[in-house]
Amino acid sequence: MDINKAIRERRSIRQYQVMVPGDEDIKKIIEAGLWAPSGLNNQPWKFKVVKEKAQKDSLARFTKYSAIIRDAPVVICVFLDNSSTYNREKDILAIGACIQNMLLSAWELGLGTCWLGEILNKKEDVRKYLKIDSDCELMAVVTLGYSDEEVSRGCRKNLKSFIIK
Amino acid sequence: MDINKAIRERRSIRQYQVMVPGDEDIKKIIEAGLWAPSGLNNQPWKFKVVKEKAQKDSLARFTKYSAIIRDAPVVICVFLDNSSTYNREKDILAIGACIQNMLLSAWELGLGTCWLGEILNKKEDVRKYLKIDSDCELMAVVTLGYSDEEVSRGCRKNLKSFIIK
Repeated sequence: MDINKAIRERRSIRQYQVMVPGDEDIKKIIEAGLWAPSGLNNQPWKFKVVKEKAQKDSLARFTKYSAIIRDAPVVICVFLDNSSTYNREKDILAIGACIQNMLLSAWELGLGTCWLGEILNKKEDVRKYLKIDSDCELMAVVTLGYSDEEVSRGCRKNLKSFIIK
Repeated sequence: MDINKAIRERRSIRQYQVMVPGDEDIKKIIEAGLWAPSGLNNQPWKFKVVKEKAQKDSLARFTKYSAIIRDAPVVICVFLDNSSTYNREKDILAIGACIQNMLLSAWELGLGTCWLGEILNKKEDVRKYLKIDSDCELMAVVTLGYSDEEVSRGCRKNLKSFIIK
């Protein structure tokens, strides 16, 4: 699949088939994330993959979008590793690039994702529940699985409204 | 070009041929940026395209990497539009995703880019020089052009070092 097509057609997928993506695919998706650029190539990210039902059910309690986490066969928690940070805002930009690579890579593999941000309201609870080191700060939760929904059309404002003359 | 290949092979390009990329390509690249996901689909980005030599020379004074800006045929300044923000960190993540789409889209079009962050030390100077509204905050400068350098191999730490068990 070509890049511009994937960028245009990728959508958030919130309903998943029960079939669980293979470990090789999960690995490929996270590796795509690693190839994002970062300031001074500091690679300030860490990942926690959650597949166990009990753990997913517990994570689901930390967001109002709990159904998405409960139903997704795979949940990837993406952290900023504050022990390898050099500039907070640039590191957060890099994490955004990393996540976008993951979404695009998953789409190419025929997998759907949903980038969840609302759960950040409970980021400390998530970190403690997963027993993650306090240097790591939750930046997003990405759910992953084979889509079980119709792909909707995305909408964006017109290019002109974003260009400063 | 397939996505995982582009993600792996894309490199920062710091030396450019004199040939100027076409406006259609510049438009495609920025449009790829727009198709990044953002929280509540708030699309918090704005872009200023700079191609004039005098303007590029002036921008180059705001960074120690001035040669890259001076030599690039096209410079795209990417701003966070604080008038359409809803959560600063999530908006910055979205801008990171937007920039990554632009880099990948350019790569597919046979164009090289360099994502410059050091210039953010002078982000207010850049904004004022370009006479950009104070709601807009510089997040990155992306240089763009046909590569005039050998593509280097990238390096990343091993996947294992990023996965939390």
